[in-house]
Amino acid sequence: MKKPLILVTNDDGINAPGIRLLVKIMNNIGDVVVVAPDGPRSGMSSAITIESTIRCNKIIIDNGPQEEYSCSGTTVDCVKLATNVILKRKPDLCVSGINHGSNSSINVIYSGTMAGSIEGALEGIPSIGFSILDTSLNADMTEIIQYVESITLKVLKHSIDKGLCLNVNFPKKKKDIEVKGVKVCRQANANWIEEFDERIDPNGKKYYWLTGKFVNYDSGKDTDEWALANHYVSIVPVQFDLTNYNSLIDLKKIF
Amino acid sequence: MKKPLILVTNDDGINAPGIRLLVKIMNNIGDVVVVAPDGPRSGMSSAITIESTIRCNKIIIDNGPQEEYSCSGTTVDCVKLATNVILKRKPDLCVSGINHGSNSSINVIYSGTMAGSIEGALEGIPSIGFSILDTSLNADMTEIIQYVESITLKVLKHSIDKGLCLNVNFPKKKKDIEVKGVKVCRQANANWIEEFDERIDPNGKKYYWLTGKFVNYDSGKDTDEWALANHYVSIVPVQFDLTNYNSLIDLKKIF
Repeated sequence: MKKPLILVTNDDGINAPGIRLLVKIMNNIGDVVVVAPDGPRSGMSSAITIESTIRCNKIIIDNGPQEEYSCSGTTVDCVKLATNVILKRKPDLCVSGINHGSNSSINVIYSGTMAGSIEGALEGIPSIGFSILDTSLNADMTEIIQYVESITLKVLKHSIDKGLCLNVNFPKKKKDIEVKGVKVCRQANANWIEEFDERIDPNGKKYYWLTGKFVNYDSGKDTDEWALANHYVSIVPVQFDLTNYNSLIDLKKIF
Repeated sequence: MKKPLILVTNDDGINAPGIRLLVKIMNNIGDVVVVAPDGPRSGMSSAITIESTIRCNKIIIDNGPQEEYSCSGTTVDCVKLATNVILKRKPDLCVSGINHGSNSSINVIYSGTMAGSIEGALEGIPSIGFSILDTSLNADMTEIIQYVESITLKVLKHSIDKGLCLNVNFPKKKKDIEVKGVKVCRQANANWIEEFDERIDPNGKKYYWLTGKFVNYDSGKDTDEWALANHYVSIVPVQFDLTNYNSLIDLKKIF
């Protein structure tokens, strides 16, 4: 049987431990091509590079069988470059991550990791974004390897919908608590309450660091936040038709 | 009657003609505070600044009654700064634009303009993104002023849903063709086919410009693309719950 062609990207940069592990796992499943940013692009959402130029160079990072390209652009630039310039055929799967930090709930909006998989889905490639609720570069990911593998294999086996995009989040590893399994969920209604950290530079001028507190308004047991808080892996299918169909009829009466 | 407080932002930068016109129009409707990027942030989507610091300075651009702040960050940073640091109360409305270029159909995903209004809606402020299908900074916007005004007034009058976010696009001004009216639409199923422009720098090294061709796969007369092609103003209500509810049941069988 022909091996699937798997495009791997992320937003923490091509050298981040999360993507290195993801590459290793994917090498057991298919032929892997990595196109990822040359450094961190967290919180870049679906940003694309249109005001400046993009560099993309083939590089070797380890002894694995994968082909790798390091790109000066955003995660979405990487996916566009991969599918339009680098790859000779459309990949069978696009995976993004493993992100060092949560992309559950509203985080999906700001996430470069998820933007990478949304872009893959947009181009008709079944896509998965993987994230772990641990921002440490030394996050313990041993337990989640089996889940990354099994979710990937299931998508490859079952994917009929070419526009499929999954947002997969893993709970942070806690001592003596095992991951209980997988839950297919909806995105929780949660948000960030920003708290800008105001500081004064050496020249006496103000500047800010963006920071904030995550607030979950949603107690639904069918949400990703519930699943994660209860030690499940959350899987949310993500769409890129942003039309709010529920409000169409009411708005037609007004306009 | 108390005047509404209106937050104005954009992604073309605080000096772009589109936002200057929007500020003028909004000055006739309410008390205006402008918090916008200090230069172009097109295609930045919902990017937020987390790897570096943000500057935000009060400035005066013209003789209007509005208060203005120029920000080194992205459009979403601007909205977050406005609501959390600058404004003393929650604004009654957040408007973004008028963008020099289309944000119809799939462009909503990459748009900084729309990210600004999505962020407003996320924070519980009724929000509108305005864009014209003309990338020229000299775009003729005289005809659309009345529509910007009437749509804004209707949102202020009718908005019960605090999470309302509208994506409003105007057709490019064509000689002898008048705008026919307003259509409430769904986002067309269309996409970009990228064509990276590969060039060689003076040192003999490759670089790319991202470019592409917009392709509409959707002939539906209920779409924004149809409305715009037929000289209507398109209004698409936008949501930030990205859950693909249609695929939940099928996915629960697989995982």
